[in-house]
Amino acid sequence: MQQGKLFVVSGPSGAGKSVITRALTSGDDFDLSVSMTTRKPREGETEGVSYYFVSHEDFERTVQEDGFLEHASIYGNCYGTPKAPVLEKLGAGRNVVLEIEMQGAMQVKKAYPEAVLIFVLPPSMKVLRERLRGRGTESEEQLNTRMQKALSEIRLLKDYDYYLVNDDLDEAIAEAGRIAKGERRRLTKAKAKSIVSKYEEEENAFISGDRPA
Amino acid sequence: MQQGKLFVVSGPSGAGKSVITRALTSGDDFDLSVSMTTRKPREGETEGVSYYFVSHEDFERTVQEDGFLEHASIYGNCYGTPKAPVLEKLGAGRNVVLEIEMQGAMQVKKAYPEAVLIFVLPPSMKVLRERLRGRGTESEEQLNTRMQKALSEIRLLKDYDYYLVNDDLDEAIAEAGRIAKGERRRLTKAKAKSIVSKYEEEENAFISGDRPA
Repeated sequence: MQQGKLFVVSGPSGAGKSVITRALTSGDDFDLSVSMTTRKPREGETEGVSYYFVSHEDFERTVQEDGFLEHASIYGNCYGTPKAPVLEKLGAGRNVVLEIEMQGAMQVKKAYPEAVLIFVLPPSMKVLRERLRGRGTESEEQLNTRMQKALSEIRLLKDYDYYLVNDDLDEAIAEAGRIAKGERRRLTKAKAKSIVSKYEEEENAFISGDRPA
Repeated sequence: MQQGKLFVVSGPSGAGKSVITRALTSGDDFDLSVSMTTRKPREGETEGVSYYFVSHEDFERTVQEDGFLEHASIYGNCYGTPKAPVLEKLGAGRNVVLEIEMQGAMQVKKAYPEAVLIFVLPPSMKVLRERLRGRGTESEEQLNTRMQKALSEIRLLKDYDYYLVNDDLDEAIAEAGRIAKGERRRLTKAKAKSIVSKYEEEENAFISGDRPA
Protein backbone atom coordinates (compact mmCIF):
# COMPACT_ATOMS: atom_id res chain seq x y z
CA MET A 1 0.00 0.00 0.00
CA GLN A 2 1.40 3.33 -1.05
CA GLN A 3 1.31 5.98 1.68
CA GLY A 4 -1.12 8.84 0.96
CA LYS A 5 0.02 12.45 0.65
CA LEU A 6 -0.75 15.23 3.08
CA PHE A 7 -1.58 18.63 1.53
CA VAL A 8 -1.87 21.90 3.41
CA VAL A 9 -3.73 24.81 1.80
CA SER A 10 -3.17 28.32 3.16
CA GLY A 11 -3.58 31.86 1.95
CA PRO A 12 -4.71 35.29 3.12
CA SER A 13 -8.38 35.84 3.89
CA GLY A 14 -10.22 36.56 0.64
CA ALA A 15 -7.80 34.60 -1.57
CA GLY A 16 -10.32 31.79 -1.88
CA LYS A 17 -8.59 28.91 -0.11
CA SER A 18 -11.80 27.51 1.42
CA VAL A 19 -13.68 27.15 -1.83
CA ILE A 20 -10.62 25.64 -3.52
CA THR A 21 -10.13 23.17 -0.65
CA ARG A 22 -13.78 22.18 -0.71
CA ALA A 23 -13.68 21.63 -4.48
CA LEU A 24 -10.47 19.58 -4.19
CA THR A 25 -11.98 17.33 -1.53
CA SER A 26 -15.42 16.98 -3.14
CA GLY A 27 -14.23 14.08 -5.33
CA ASP A 28 -12.89 10.68 -4.34
CA ASP A 29 -9.17 11.46 -4.47
CA PHE A 30 -8.72 13.71 -1.44
CA ASP A 31 -10.15 13.67 2.08
CA LEU A 32 -10.73 16.85 4.04
CA SER A 33 -9.32 16.75 7.56
CA VAL A 34 -11.80 17.57 10.34
CA SER A 35 -10.49 19.91 13.06
CA MET A 36 -11.14 19.75 16.78
CA THR A 37 -12.44 22.89 18.50
CA THR A 38 -13.56 24.10 21.91
CA ARG A 39 -16.07 26.56 20.47
CA LYS A 40 -19.76 25.71 20.54
CA PRO A 41 -21.44 24.26 17.43
CA ARG A 42 -23.29 26.80 15.30
CA GLU A 43 -26.62 26.24 13.56
CA GLY A 44 -26.19 23.61 10.88
CA GLU A 45 -22.81 22.32 12.03
CA THR A 46 -22.45 18.58 12.53
CA GLU A 47 -20.19 16.76 14.99
CA GLY A 48 -17.42 14.91 13.12
CA VAL A 49 -18.16 16.67 9.82
CA SER A 50 -17.77 20.41 10.50
CA TYR A 51 -15.63 19.87 13.59
CA TYR A 52 -15.07 17.57 16.51
CA PHE A 53 -16.60 19.66 19.30
CA VAL A 54 -14.79 19.07 22.60
CA SER A 55 -14.41 20.63 26.04
CA HIS A 56 -11.39 22.75 27.02
CA GLU A 57 -10.27 19.85 29.22
CA ASP A 58 -10.37 17.32 26.38
CA PHE A 59 -8.56 19.73 24.10
CA GLU A 60 -5.85 20.37 26.69
CA ARG A 61 -5.41 16.64 27.28
CA THR A 62 -4.91 16.10 23.54
CA VAL A 63 -2.25 18.85 23.56
CA GLN A 64 -0.48 17.15 26.50
CA GLU A 65 -0.57 13.80 24.69
CA ASP A 66 1.03 15.39 21.61
CA GLY A 67 -2.16 14.49 19.77
CA PHE A 68 -2.23 17.46 17.37
CA LEU A 69 -0.43 18.03 14.09
CA GLU A 70 -1.01 21.72 14.80
CA HIS A 71 -3.17 23.77 17.11
CA ALA A 72 -3.86 27.40 17.89
CA SER A 73 -6.05 29.64 19.99
CA ILE A 74 -8.20 32.25 18.21
CA TYR A 75 -10.31 34.73 20.22
CA GLY A 76 -10.31 32.42 23.22
CA ASN A 77 -11.36 29.32 21.28
CA CYS A 78 -8.94 26.50 20.57
CA TYR A 79 -8.64 24.80 17.18
CA GLY A 80 -6.44 21.86 16.28
CA THR A 81 -5.84 19.12 13.71
CA PRO A 82 -5.94 15.73 15.49
CA LYS A 83 -2.94 13.66 14.47
CA ALA A 84 -4.39 10.12 14.70
CA PRO A 85 -7.14 10.27 12.04
CA VAL A 86 -4.82 12.03 9.57
CA LEU A 87 -1.98 9.52 10.00
CA GLU A 88 -4.48 6.66 9.83
CA LYS A 89 -5.85 7.87 6.50
CA LEU A 90 -2.36 8.48 5.08
CA GLY A 91 -1.37 4.98 6.16
CA ALA A 92 -4.38 3.58 4.32
CA GLY A 93 -3.19 5.33 1.15
CA ARG A 94 -5.69 8.19 1.31
CA ASN A 95 -4.63 11.74 0.44
CA VAL A 96 -5.60 14.28 3.08
CA VAL A 97 -6.07 18.03 2.74
CA LEU A 98 -5.86 20.53 5.61
CA GLU A 99 -6.98 24.13 5.26
CA ILE A 100 -5.08 26.09 7.89
CA GLU A 101 -3.35 29.43 8.37
CA MET A 102 0.39 29.89 8.03
CA GLN A 103 1.53 29.27 11.61
CA GLY A 104 -0.42 26.01 11.58
CA ALA A 105 1.10 25.07 8.24
CA MET A 106 4.61 25.53 9.66
CA GLN A 107 3.72 23.33 12.66
CA VAL A 108 2.46 20.62 10.31
CA LYS A 109 5.62 20.79 8.18
CA LYS A 110 7.68 20.35 11.34
CA ALA A 111 5.61 17.42 12.65
CA TYR A 112 5.26 15.80 9.20
CA PRO A 113 8.01 16.97 6.81
CA GLU A 114 6.52 15.06 3.83
CA ALA A 115 3.53 17.46 3.89
CA VAL A 116 3.08 19.47 0.69
CA LEU A 117 2.28 23.14 1.33
CA ILE A 118 0.17 25.07 -1.18
CA PHE A 119 -0.30 28.83 -0.96
CA VAL A 120 -3.37 30.45 -2.55
CA LEU A 121 -2.64 33.99 -3.78
CA PRO A 122 -5.13 36.64 -4.88
CA PRO A 123 -4.52 37.85 -8.47
CA SER A 124 -3.37 41.21 -7.05
CA MET A 125 -3.61 43.36 -3.93
CA LYS A 126 -6.12 45.54 -5.75
CA VAL A 127 -8.43 42.60 -6.44
CA LEU A 128 -8.03 41.36 -2.86
CA ARG A 129 -9.03 44.80 -1.56
CA GLU A 130 -12.07 44.80 -3.84
CA ARG A 131 -13.10 41.33 -2.72
CA LEU A 132 -12.82 42.24 0.96
CA ARG A 133 -14.62 45.55 0.37
CA GLY A 134 -17.34 43.65 -1.50
CA ARG A 135 -18.17 41.77 1.69
CA GLY A 136 -19.26 45.16 3.06
CA THR A 137 -18.48 44.22 6.67
CA GLU A 138 -15.55 46.51 7.37
CA SER A 139 -14.57 50.17 7.48
CA GLU A 140 -11.80 51.46 5.19
CA GLU A 141 -9.48 51.54 8.19
CA GLN A 142 -10.22 47.92 9.07
CA LEU A 143 -9.72 47.12 5.40
CA ASN A 144 -6.24 48.67 5.48
CA THR A 145 -5.37 46.58 8.52
CA ARG A 146 -6.60 43.48 6.70
CA MET A 147 -4.48 44.32 3.67
CA GLN A 148 -1.36 44.72 5.80
CA LYS A 149 -2.11 41.38 7.43
CA ALA A 150 -2.55 39.79 3.99
CA LEU A 151 0.79 41.21 2.86
CA SER A 152 2.56 39.91 5.97
CA GLU A 153 1.08 36.49 5.22
CA ILE A 154 2.12 36.59 1.55
CA ARG A 155 5.67 37.29 2.79
CA LEU A 156 5.67 33.72 4.19
CA LEU A 157 5.39 32.32 0.65
CA LYS A 158 9.03 31.15 0.64
CA ASP A 159 8.19 28.44 3.19
CA TYR A 160 5.64 26.88 0.81
CA ASP A 161 6.14 24.23 -1.86
CA TYR A 162 3.61 25.49 -4.42
CA TYR A 163 1.58 28.61 -5.13
CA LEU A 164 -1.49 29.19 -7.19
CA VAL A 165 -3.12 32.42 -8.22
CA ASN A 166 -6.88 32.48 -7.77
CA ASP A 167 -7.82 34.67 -10.72
CA ASP A 168 -10.35 32.43 -12.42
CA LEU A 169 -11.81 30.14 -9.73
CA ASP A 170 -12.41 27.12 -11.98
CA GLU A 171 -8.87 27.37 -13.30
CA ALA A 172 -7.49 27.71 -9.76
CA ILE A 173 -9.39 24.58 -8.70
CA ALA A 174 -8.06 22.69 -11.73
CA GLU A 175 -4.57 23.94 -10.92
CA ALA A 176 -4.84 22.73 -7.32
CA GLY A 177 -5.90 19.33 -8.61
CA ARG A 178 -2.96 19.17 -11.02
CA ILE A 179 -0.50 20.14 -8.29
CA ALA A 180 -1.90 17.56 -5.89
CA LYS A 181 -2.14 14.76 -8.44
CA GLY A 182 1.26 15.53 -9.97
CA GLU A 183 2.82 15.52 -6.52
CA ARG A 184 1.66 11.92 -5.99
CA ARG A 185 3.95 10.95 -8.89
CA ARG A 186 6.94 12.62 -7.32
CA LEU A 187 9.79 10.25 -6.52
CA THR A 188 11.68 9.90 -3.26
CA LYS A 189 14.61 7.48 -2.94
CA ALA A 190 12.40 5.14 -0.90
CA LYS A 191 9.55 5.24 -3.39
CA ALA A 192 11.91 4.64 -6.34
CA LYS A 193 13.42 1.68 -4.51
CA SER A 194 10.04 0.11 -3.81
CA ILE A 195 8.93 0.55 -7.45
CA VAL A 196 12.18 -0.94 -8.82
CA SER A 197 11.80 -3.96 -6.49
CA LYS A 198 8.35 -4.65 -7.91
CA TYR A 199 9.65 -4.78 -11.50
CA GLU A 200 12.71 -6.83 -10.50
CA GLU A 201 10.61 -9.39 -8.64
CA GLU A 202 8.25 -9.73 -11.54
CA GLU A 203 11.05 -10.27 -14.05
CA ASN A 204 12.91 -12.69 -11.76
CA ALA A 205 9.74 -14.72 -11.30
CA PHE A 206 9.37 -14.84 -15.08
CA ILE A 207 12.97 -15.93 -15.64
CA SER A 208 12.81 -18.60 -12.98
CA GLY A 209 9.82 -20.07 -14.80
CA ASP A 210 7.23 -19.03 -12.30
CA ARG A 211 5.29 -17.33 -15.06
CA PRO A 212 2.02 -15.67 -14.19
CA ALA A 213 -0.98 -16.88 -16.18
CA MET B 1 9.36 37.33 -17.62
CA GLN B 2 9.25 34.07 -15.74
CA GLN B 3 11.87 31.53 -16.86
CA GLY B 4 10.40 28.48 -18.63
CA LYS B 5 10.85 24.96 -17.29
CA LEU B 6 12.94 22.22 -18.87
CA PHE B 7 11.44 18.72 -18.80
CA VAL B 8 13.25 15.51 -19.70
CA VAL B 9 11.22 12.40 -20.56
CA SER B 10 12.95 9.00 -20.45
CA GLY B 11 11.93 5.39 -20.14
CA PRO B 12 12.74 1.94 -21.48
CA SER B 13 11.95 1.15 -25.10
CA GLY B 14 8.29 0.16 -25.36
CA ALA B 15 7.16 2.19 -22.36
CA GLY B 16 5.62 4.80 -24.64
CA LYS B 17 7.75 7.86 -23.95
CA SER B 18 7.69 9.09 -27.57
CA VAL B 19 3.94 9.18 -27.95
CA ILE B 20 3.58 10.83 -24.52
CA THR B 21 6.21 13.45 -25.40
CA ARG B 22 4.56 14.17 -28.74
CA ALA B 23 1.14 14.55 -27.08
CA LEU B 24 2.60 16.83 -24.40
CA THR B 25 4.22 19.10 -27.01
CA SER B 26 1.31 19.12 -29.46
CA GLY B 27 -0.38 21.99 -27.61
CA ASP B 28 0.83 25.53 -26.96
CA ASP B 29 2.31 25.02 -23.50
CA PHE B 30 5.40 22.94 -24.25
CA ASP B 31 8.00 23.04 -27.04
CA LEU B 32 9.76 19.91 -28.24
CA SER B 33 13.53 20.26 -28.44
CA VAL B 34 15.07 19.38 -31.81
CA SER B 35 18.23 17.25 -31.68
CA MET B 36 21.33 17.54 -33.83
CA THR B 37 22.56 14.38 -35.57
CA THR B 38 25.26 13.23 -37.94
CA ARG B 39 23.10 10.55 -39.49
CA LYS B 40 21.57 11.12 -42.92
CA PRO B 41 17.95 12.29 -43.19
CA ARG B 42 15.42 9.54 -43.85
CA GLU B 43 12.43 9.77 -46.18
CA GLY B 44 9.97 12.32 -44.79
CA GLU B 45 12.35 13.90 -42.27
CA THR B 46 12.66 17.69 -42.33
CA GLU B 47 15.73 19.75 -41.40
CA GLY B 48 15.05 21.72 -38.21
CA VAL B 49 11.89 19.76 -37.43
CA SER B 50 12.91 16.10 -37.17
CA TYR B 51 16.58 16.93 -36.54
CA TYR B 52 19.29 19.39 -37.38
CA PHE B 53 21.33 17.32 -39.84
CA VAL B 54 25.03 18.17 -39.62
CA SER B 55 28.42 16.80 -40.64
CA HIS B 56 30.73 14.98 -38.21
CA GLU B 57 32.99 18.05 -38.29
CA ASP B 58 30.18 20.42 -37.29
CA PHE B 59 29.06 18.05 -34.56
CA GLU B 60 32.58 17.73 -33.17
CA ARG B 61 33.02 21.53 -33.22
CA THR B 62 29.81 21.93 -31.20
CA VAL B 63 31.13 19.39 -28.68
CA GLN B 64 34.40 21.34 -28.40
CA GLU B 65 32.52 24.60 -27.89
CA ASP B 66 30.49 23.00 -25.05
CA GLY B 67 27.43 23.57 -27.20
CA PHE B 68 25.43 20.51 -26.11
CA LEU B 69 23.25 19.94 -23.06
CA GLU B 70 23.91 16.24 -23.70
CA HIS B 71 25.24 14.14 -26.54
CA ALA B 72 25.91 10.49 -27.31
CA SER B 73 27.05 8.21 -30.07
CA ILE B 74 24.74 5.35 -31.12
CA TYR B 75 25.83 2.82 -33.76
CA GLY B 76 28.41 5.26 -35.14
CA ASN B 77 25.98 8.16 -35.42
CA CYS B 78 26.16 11.14 -33.09
CA TYR B 79 23.10 12.70 -31.47
CA GLY B 80 22.99 15.76 -29.25
CA THR B 81 20.72 18.43 -27.76
CA PRO B 82 22.04 21.86 -28.76
CA LYS B 83 22.24 24.12 -25.72
CA ALA B 84 21.60 27.54 -27.30
CA PRO B 85 18.04 27.08 -28.68
CA VAL B 86 16.89 25.39 -25.45
CA LEU B 87 18.29 28.12 -23.18
CA GLU B 88 16.89 30.78 -25.50
CA LYS B 89 13.38 29.31 -25.28
CA LEU B 90 13.58 28.91 -21.49
CA GLY B 91 14.74 32.53 -21.22
CA ALA B 92 11.73 33.63 -23.24
CA GLY B 93 9.46 31.83 -20.73
CA ARG B 94 8.77 28.80 -22.94
CA ASN B 95 8.67 25.30 -21.44
CA VAL B 96 10.85 22.82 -23.30
CA VAL B 97 10.61 19.01 -23.40
CA LEU B 98 13.48 16.66 -24.29
CA GLU B 99 12.95 12.98 -24.98
CA ILE B 100 16.27 11.28 -24.27
CA GLU B 101 17.66 8.12 -22.72
CA MET B 102 18.96 7.92 -19.18
CA GLN B 103 22.64 8.78 -19.69
CA GLY B 104 21.56 11.88 -21.61
CA ALA B 105 19.09 12.79 -18.87
CA MET B 106 21.88 12.65 -16.27
CA GLN B 107 24.06 14.91 -18.45
CA VAL B 108 21.19 17.41 -18.72
CA LYS B 109 20.59 17.39 -14.96
CA LYS B 110 24.29 18.13 -14.44
CA ALA B 111 24.40 20.94 -17.02
CA TYR B 112 21.02 22.37 -15.97
CA PRO B 113 20.09 21.31 -12.41
CA GLU B 114 16.64 22.97 -12.61
CA ALA B 115 15.62 20.36 -15.21
CA VAL B 116 12.67 18.19 -14.18
CA LEU B 117 13.18 14.49 -15.00
CA ILE B 118 10.16 12.31 -15.75
CA PHE B 119 10.43 8.53 -16.10
CA VAL B 120 7.82 6.61 -18.12
CA LEU B 121 7.25 3.09 -16.77
CA PRO B 122 5.41 0.20 -18.44
CA PRO B 123 2.51 -1.13 -16.31
CA SER B 124 4.51 -4.32 -15.70
CA MET B 125 7.39 -6.34 -17.14
CA LYS B 126 4.83 -8.76 -18.53
CA VAL B 127 3.05 -6.03 -20.47
CA LEU B 128 6.37 -4.62 -21.68
CA ARG B 129 7.37 -8.07 -22.98
CA GLU B 130 4.02 -8.38 -24.76
CA ARG B 131 4.38 -4.96 -26.33
CA LEU B 132 7.89 -5.70 -27.57
CA ARG B 133 6.84 -9.14 -28.80
CA GLY B 134 3.89 -7.55 -30.58
CA ARG B 135 6.31 -5.58 -32.74
CA GLY B 136 7.33 -8.96 -34.14
CA THR B 137 10.84 -7.83 -35.02
CA GLU B 138 12.86 -9.86 -32.53
CA SER B 139 13.61 -13.44 -31.50
CA GLU B 140 12.77 -14.61 -27.96
CA GLU B 141 16.47 -14.38 -27.13
CA GLN B 142 16.71 -10.79 -28.34
CA LEU B 143 13.54 -10.12 -26.39
CA ASN B 144 15.16 -11.41 -23.20
CA THR B 145 18.16 -9.14 -23.77
CA ARG B 146 15.76 -6.21 -24.29
CA MET B 147 13.96 -7.02 -21.05
CA GLN B 148 17.23 -7.11 -19.10
CA LYS B 149 18.16 -3.75 -20.63
CA ALA B 150 14.74 -2.35 -19.66
CA LEU B 151 15.21 -3.56 -16.10
CA SER B 152 18.67 -2.02 -15.84
CA GLU B 153 17.13 1.25 -17.06
CA ILE B 154 14.26 1.06 -14.56
CA ARG B 155 16.91 0.70 -11.84
CA LEU B 156 17.93 4.31 -12.59
CA LEU B 157 14.50 5.54 -11.43
CA LYS B 158 15.93 6.99 -8.21
CA ASP B 159 17.69 9.73 -10.17
CA TYR B 160 14.37 10.99 -11.55
CA ASP B 161 11.97 13.55 -10.10
CA TYR B 162 8.69 11.99 -11.26
CA TYR B 163 7.42 8.70 -12.64
CA LEU B 164 4.32 7.81 -14.53
CA VAL B 165 2.92 4.42 -15.41
CA ASN B 166 1.77 4.10 -19.00
CA ASP B 167 -1.15 1.74 -18.51
CA ASP B 168 -3.90 3.70 -20.21
CA LEU B 169 -2.23 6.00 -22.76
CA ASP B 170 -4.74 8.87 -22.50
CA GLU B 171 -4.45 8.81 -18.73
CA ALA B 172 -0.62 8.73 -18.97
CA ILE B 173 -0.68 11.76 -21.28
CA ALA B 174 -3.01 13.61 -18.90
CA GLU B 175 -0.72 12.65 -16.02
CA ALA B 176 2.33 13.99 -17.84
CA GLY B 177 0.49 17.26 -18.43
CA ARG B 178 -0.49 17.52 -14.76
CA ILE B 179 3.08 16.86 -13.62
CA ALA B 180 4.49 19.44 -16.02
CA LYS B 181 1.87 22.09 -15.30
CA GLY B 182 1.96 21.49 -11.55
CA GLU B 183 5.74 21.77 -11.58
CA ARG B 184 5.46 25.29 -13.02
CA ARG B 185 3.71 26.32 -9.78
CA ARG B 186 6.50 24.93 -7.63
CA LEU B 187 8.24 27.53 -5.48
CA THR B 188 11.93 28.17 -5.16
CA LYS B 189 13.27 30.80 -2.74
CA ALA B 190 14.02 33.07 -5.72
CA LYS B 191 10.59 32.66 -7.23
CA ALA B 192 8.86 33.28 -3.89
CA LYS B 193 10.93 36.43 -3.42
CA SER B 194 10.03 37.78 -6.84
CA ILE B 195 6.31 37.09 -6.32
CA VAL B 196 6.30 38.72 -2.86
CA SER B 197 8.02 41.83 -4.30
CA LYS B 198 5.27 42.21 -6.86
CA TYR B 199 2.54 42.25 -4.18
CA GLU B 200 4.57 44.55 -1.91
CA GLU B 201 5.20 47.05 -4.70
CA GLU B 202 1.54 47.09 -5.64
CA GLU B 203 0.40 47.69 -2.08
CA ASN B 204 3.08 50.34 -1.45
CA ALA B 205 2.03 52.16 -4.62
CA PHE B 206 -1.55 52.08 -3.38
CA ILE B 207 -0.67 53.39 0.09
CA SER B 208 1.49 56.19 -1.31
CA GLY B 209 -1.53 57.34 -3.32
CA ASP B 210 -0.25 56.26 -6.71
CA ARG B 211 -3.42 54.26 -7.20
CA PRO B 212 -3.83 52.39 -10.44
CA ALA B 213 -6.99 53.23 -12.42
